[in-house]
Formats: sequence, C-alpha cells, structure tokens
Amino acid sequence: MDKPISAAPAAGMRDMVPSEVALRDWAIHVITNSYEQFGFTRIETPIMENINLLRRGEGGENLQLIFEVLKRGEKLERELKNPELKRESLADLGLRFDLTVPLVRFYANNISSLPNPLKAIQIGPVFRAESPQVGRFRQFTQCDIDIIGVKSEVAEMELVQATSNALLGLGFTGFTVRINDRRILALLAEAFGFAKERTDRLFITLDKLDKIGVDGVRKELENDGHENKSISGLIDFLVATANAKGDLKGQRASLPDLITDEIWQPLQNVVNAIQTISQGQFKIEFDPTLVRGMGYYTGMIFEISCEGYSSSVAGGGRYDKMVGKFSGRDVPACGFSIGFERIVSILTEKGFQPPSQRERLAIIFDSDRDNAADVLAAATDLRKKNYVVGVYARKKEMKKQLDQLSTQQFTRYAVFRGKDAELELKSFKSE
Amino acid sequence: MDKPISAAPAAGMRDMVPSEVALRDWAIHVITNSYEQFGFTRIETPIMENINLLRRGEGGENLQLIFEVLKRGEKLERELKNPELKRESLADLGLRFDLTVPLVRFYANNISSLPNPLKAIQIGPVFRAESPQVGRFRQFTQCDIDIIGVKSEVAEMELVQATSNALLGLGFTGFTVRINDRRILALLAEAFGFAKERTDRLFITLDKLDKIGVDGVRKELENDGHENKSISGLIDFLVATANAKGDLKGQRASLPDLITDEIWQPLQNVVNAIQTISQGQFKIEFDPTLVRGMGYYTGMIFEISCEGYSSSVAGGGRYDKMVGKFSGRDVPACGFSIGFERIVSILTEKGFQPPSQRERLAIIFDSDRDNAADVLAAATDLRKKNYVVGVYARKKEMKKQLDQLSTQQFTRYAVFRGKDAELELKSFKSE
Repeated sequence: MDKPISAAPAAGMRDMVPSEVALRDWAIHVITNSYEQFGFTRIETPIMENINLLRRGEGGENLQLIFEVLKRGEKLERELKNPELKRESLADLGLRFDLTVPLVRFYANNISSLPNPLKAIQIGPVFRAESPQVGRFRQFTQCDIDIIGVKSEVAEMELVQATSNALLGLGFTGFTVRINDRRILALLAEAFGFAKERTDRLFITLDKLDKIGVDGVRKELENDGHENKSISGLIDFLVATANAKGDLKGQRASLPDLITDEIWQPLQNVVNAIQTISQGQFKIEFDPTLVRGMGYYTGMIFEISCEGYSSSVAGGGRYDKMVGKFSGRDVPACGFSIGFERIVSILTEKGFQPPSQRERLAIIFDSDRDNAADVLAAATDLRKKNYVVGVYARKKEMKKQLDQLSTQQFTRYAVFRGKDAELELKSFKSE
Repeated sequence: MDKPISAAPAAGMRDMVPSEVALRDWAIHVITNSYEQFGFTRIETPIMENINLLRRGEGGENLQLIFEVLKRGEKLERELKNPELKRESLADLGLRFDLTVPLVRFYANNISSLPNPLKAIQIGPVFRAESPQVGRFRQFTQCDIDIIGVKSEVAEMELVQATSNALLGLGFTGFTVRINDRRILALLAEAFGFAKERTDRLFITLDKLDKIGVDGVRKELENDGHENKSISGLIDFLVATANAKGDLKGQRASLPDLITDEIWQPLQNVVNAIQTISQGQFKIEFDPTLVRGMGYYTGMIFEISCEGYSSSVAGGGRYDKMVGKFSGRDVPACGFSIGFERIVSILTEKGFQPPSQRERLAIIFDSDRDNAADVLAAATDLRKKNYVVGVYARKKEMKKQLDQLSTQQFTRYAVFRGKDAELELKSFKSE
C-alpha cells in the first residue's frame, strides 16, 4: 500500500455530509417550489464558459477572482513554446463567477426557443478565487430568478413577491425589502454637484454606508477629492430621507425636481403593491442610500435585510442594457438573487432541522441462515408502505451494530425471522 | 453599444432550456426518491479537487482528460519566471472527472462524522476534456450510489435492487443486469496461460467484445503477442459460458476448479436473490465476458443493458482497496452508477414528457387602470389553490400576448376585472 495521501478538500472547498446536504436540499426545494408557483422555470448553463466572455467586464471586482482553465494539448504546447509567453493566453476557459453573465449569454443563444417573457430560475454553484478564510468559500451556491422581456414594473413586483414568498416559506419573517432606483442615485449625485464620470466610484463608497458608517463614507469621499459642499449636501440628504422611511410622500417631496414621475411612479407602485399584499409579514421601504455593488444596473434595485443579521439575504435589480451586448438588441431584464449560503448559515445557527418525511427502518438478518431473497422482499413490502428501509447482515456484535444504526435517523428495527413471520419492529430508543 | 459577442456556450458545453431541465429534474427526483427509500442519503463533494489527487492514477484513461485550473497570483508568477517552466506545475486544481475518486477522499476526510456503513447518493456534474463531437459533452451528470463499510454481498444486493428499482421508476423495463467477478476473469486468464502482469491490458481488450466482436478481440490479442492456444481457449470458453446464461449450475460446472466457492457463492447469492425479487420485470445473468473499464475493481462487477440500446445504462462494482489509499486502512466499498445522460437521451428519443403537477394560469391586467396590489392578491389566492400563476401587464396586441403565453404550458388565463370580481378563467385552446 502506498503512503496515504491527504484527504482534505482543496483550500476554500467544502465536503458536505448527509445532514448538511439534507438542509440545503430542503431549502432549495422550498425556494424552487415557491418560484414555480409564480410561473418561473429552471434553466441551466454550463459551469465553464469561454474565458473571453468572463473577462469581458460585466463582473466588476469578480473579474479578479476568476478560476481560469488551462489550455490543453497542442494549443497549450504552442503557448508554452512562445518566447513571449503571456499569462492571459494560457487559459481558454474559466469557471463562472455568477449566474447573471451566463444567463444573458444563454438568453441571446436560445432566444428562438425560449418563452417570451422568460421567467428563469437558476440554482447552481459559482466560483471565486477569494483568499480562503473562515466562512468564506471558493465554491458556493447562487439562487437567482430573472424576468427577461418585461419593461414595466410588474417584473419588479413579481420578483419581490416571489422572493419574499420563498423567504417566508423558509421560516424567515419580519424582514425588510429595501428598494431604490439607480437613476435616483445618479440624479442626486448630479444635483449635489458630483462629477458624472466619477459616479461609479462614488456609488462603491456609498455602498459601504452599512459597514463604515456616515463618518467613514465622508472620509473616503474627502480622500477622493470631492468638494466638501457636495459631500455634506448628499450625505445630509440621504440620512434625512432614509430616516423618513415609511413616509413615501414626504420622501418624494424632499427629492429634487429632476427626479421625474417617470422614475418615481413605478417605484411607488411597487412599494404600495407589495406593502398591501405583505399583510404585515414583512416590510418594504424606499431607501435612497441603497446602492448595490454591480455596475450593470439601470433602474430599480432591491435588497432584503433581516433583523439581527448584518449582511443582506437577497439582492437584485433591473439591468436593461446587458442582453444587447450579446444579441445586439437591448431587451429589458430584471433579477433577484437569494444569498443561499447566508440563508443556510442562518438556518444552521438557529439549529433548524428539515422535516423528515418518512420513518426509517432497519432490517437485520442472518446472512448464513436466512434466504436473502425473502429479506429483500420483506424490505420491498415495507417500502411500499412508505418506510425508508435499509437491509443489514447481522454482525457478531449486534449491540454495537444497533448503536451505529440508531445514530442514522433510524427509529425502529426488526430482526428477520424467516419468510412468513411478521417482522417485529422494535424502537431503538426503548433499548 | 459594443460589437455583440458570441452567445454560444464553450465547445462541448450545453445550455439547457426549461423543457430539458424539467425532464432532467424529474429523472433526478425519481432516482433520488428511489435511493432514499433504500436508506441512501445525499452527500456532496466540491467540483474542484487538488490536481495531485486527480492525477494520482485511479482514473484510468480519464487522467488524460482532466481540465486543469491555472495557479493564481504570485504562485503563477513564480512558475512563469522559472526558466525550466513545466506544464505540470502551472495548475494546482482540477475539475473532477468522476464521483468515485472524490467519494473515497470524502470518506477518509469525514469518517468520524459519517454513518457506518455509509450509503451515499452522489448526483452532480463531472468534466472530461474529450474532443467535442455530436452527443458527447465535456460536462455531464453522474448519478452514483455507493456503500462503504459492508464486506458481505448484501451491499451488492442492495445496490442492484436500488438501481433496478430506480430504472423501473423511470419507466424502463425488460433490462438485463449482467454480473461477473473480477477475480473470476483473472483466474480464467491464469488458467488459460496468460501472463499475470498483462491482465490489465487483456481486460481492456476483452471489454471491447460488444463493440468489435469475437474476431476483433482475437485479432487484438494476437497483435499483442499472446499465444494462440491461450487466446482460443479463453475466447471459446467465454463464448460457451456466456451462451449458457440463465443456467447458473451449468456455468459453474464449466468454470475451472481454481474458482473457489468463496468467490462463486456470493455471486450466486446475488443472482438468486435478485432473480427472485425481480418478478419478471427485469433479468439478472452471470456474464463471464463482463469486464468494466476501471482498474480499481476487486470483486463483483455489474452492468445494466437495455434491449435496443447498444451501450449500458448503468455500471459498477466492488473496490475494496481504494479507501485505504487515503485512510491508510482498507475499507470494503461497492458502487453502482446510472448513466444519467444515457437515460435522459433515451427518454428524449422516446418523446417522454414528465408529468406536470400543477395547472398553469396567467392573469392579465391593465397596468394603467387596475390596482396592482389587487392583482397580486388575486394571484396569491389562486396559488393557494395549488395553481401556478403568472401575472402579466396587458400588451397592446393582446392576441399576440395570448399566443405567446399559450406556448408556455399555460392552460388557462383570466383578464383581471377589478378587485372583487370573480376571475373568469378561459382556456387558451378554445380561443
């Protein structure tokens, strides 16, 4: 026998034992079922995409975190023989870092065979080469819904309602949907005298308000050389308007005139509609400080936060200009993504156990004496009665064997006693 | 707008539209549900493994087909600056090419928190850098069950019964489970005078019997320089014994004495037990010509073939020496893998449609006139009655909108007519 080799998964990667997978599968089932009730259907894109697609620049900071896949065979040999070998030309494929870039490519590629509008569910692993650290993983599951082909705010309403509904199904209540419009942010920045070409960086700083607070944001904007008047004006406005949350009318009155009804009305429609149907189980609020990290948003943006947990559990928005980069023709699009790993870690912290649907029985038999066919047939009969049944050859130390089985969610067992004898089911607990 | 970029997936990769995912999800549900009834539970390993693990040699021919992931940052810079740059040192990770190598690592890594025996379900994507060609994909789904920790043939019985049960659930009938033992093959080769150190290659040739026939195998063995007497002896024996299938006693009588009862008895037990419980829905046969490609098998091996389809739909066997390479201590192990892509393509060829569980309704409303909250509430009420409900703002060309919805498995629609009015559901078909 060779020397044993390391059994640990690669850095930043996770093995998932049965109890972990059971919780994740339950959550995926609840979420998918909820989305399907709204008419969304699952689609799938490959784990790997052409590296040029991934590098193309819709990924923001994630572009630095792509796992690149080495070319193979002659193609690789050619690169390696090149005296001016370039790092960038060694890879032809990469692992997807989100589900939005692949979705947009998918839509453009399959448009002729897709429903219009497309209401897509995507659940699957994405990969980012983050520095490994506790609680941060390089492979994690994303869980997105997107509506492609709907221009009106009905899309936003359905996304917010479906996502809230999924969270309620998972046992989350009292959460808050925060909503804003990217165009409001941009117009506010303009109104307070920020230079237009610098709004991307401005938004990235504003996005940190939750983490570094008003003073932190102020300092970062000062360091970036913005005028003090602009900084104070914008920050004071945002804080005042955010504090007025719940009072849509008051918030509207305080917004500068350049924010037209064309932008404000749909946002107000979404807030009002969702508020009415939420029946107090969750809240929705206009939050002018909401930014969202990605650069591709063009309209409404939203995030869901849960009391007692700092980072958000879901986020999304409208991105009307992305499909056109593939199809050459803009198509309205809007998406909402549940932070699946966040959800799973909150459920785990809470000690949540997914409901088990079937009782688990173990049949133990004497493999030297009993006829195996009779044992398998007895197990089959019990399975038809909706039990989970495992069959085990009796070990010499049956006490130890029973102890092992009792730790596997088996609740009862039976020792097989010949073809026609009734199986006598005994509880592990009473032993 | 930039020039549109290619929307096609990477070579050998597939996009899956809603109808394709629905079929696959249904098949996965049926298979998983069947396995769970036998007490198997799902586990998950990461998509990426350390490259050294993958290269270590349990993968047979698949080792040539690994997608390797480029090192990143300083590590990569160091390699690129090395004047004796080696291809092998450019990658630190790779994509898994099967689920068995990861399973064995997983078992060794998590042994203390795993049930004993472990009955694992693994369903997930694997990756092989095959030359792209029609019907062959570089990412495909494998669907394995494995029992780790059971020495007796009860493991084989459960694997064969659970896999057959899953196939029956998928609507397959009249299939044949072929079973053999690697040790029988090895002893036969010895009995007919083949050199022991050359049995690996001999088996690879024998494995092609289905594809290249008796003459092809004979020619390949002659080319390899084996003695004519050995070749004829073995081939004649295999053909005669294979033809006697169904007659276990006769087959046993023809086997050389060096095949002891210790090897024969368990195999016979499995055949007899499965034959009895199959109730004529499928067959199980001892097939001395069955080889299986992988080198790691140590005992019984099995394959399931379907009449009318050349390649097998499932395969597996016992591999008692693999866990020890990680844990330093051998643990008996046995697995069975359903050829998921094969199953899906057969179901697709048959025109199979997965049963849909809920009727789909569309509510169309006038977004200028109707109150969106009332529309969403009406949709919620219908969802509580177990309908799938999509909400759509009425378009100017409503006829075209209805046509589009009717292609999306919606069966009925209602035009919203104010808060308290009953929704009048109309059939698309009758329009």
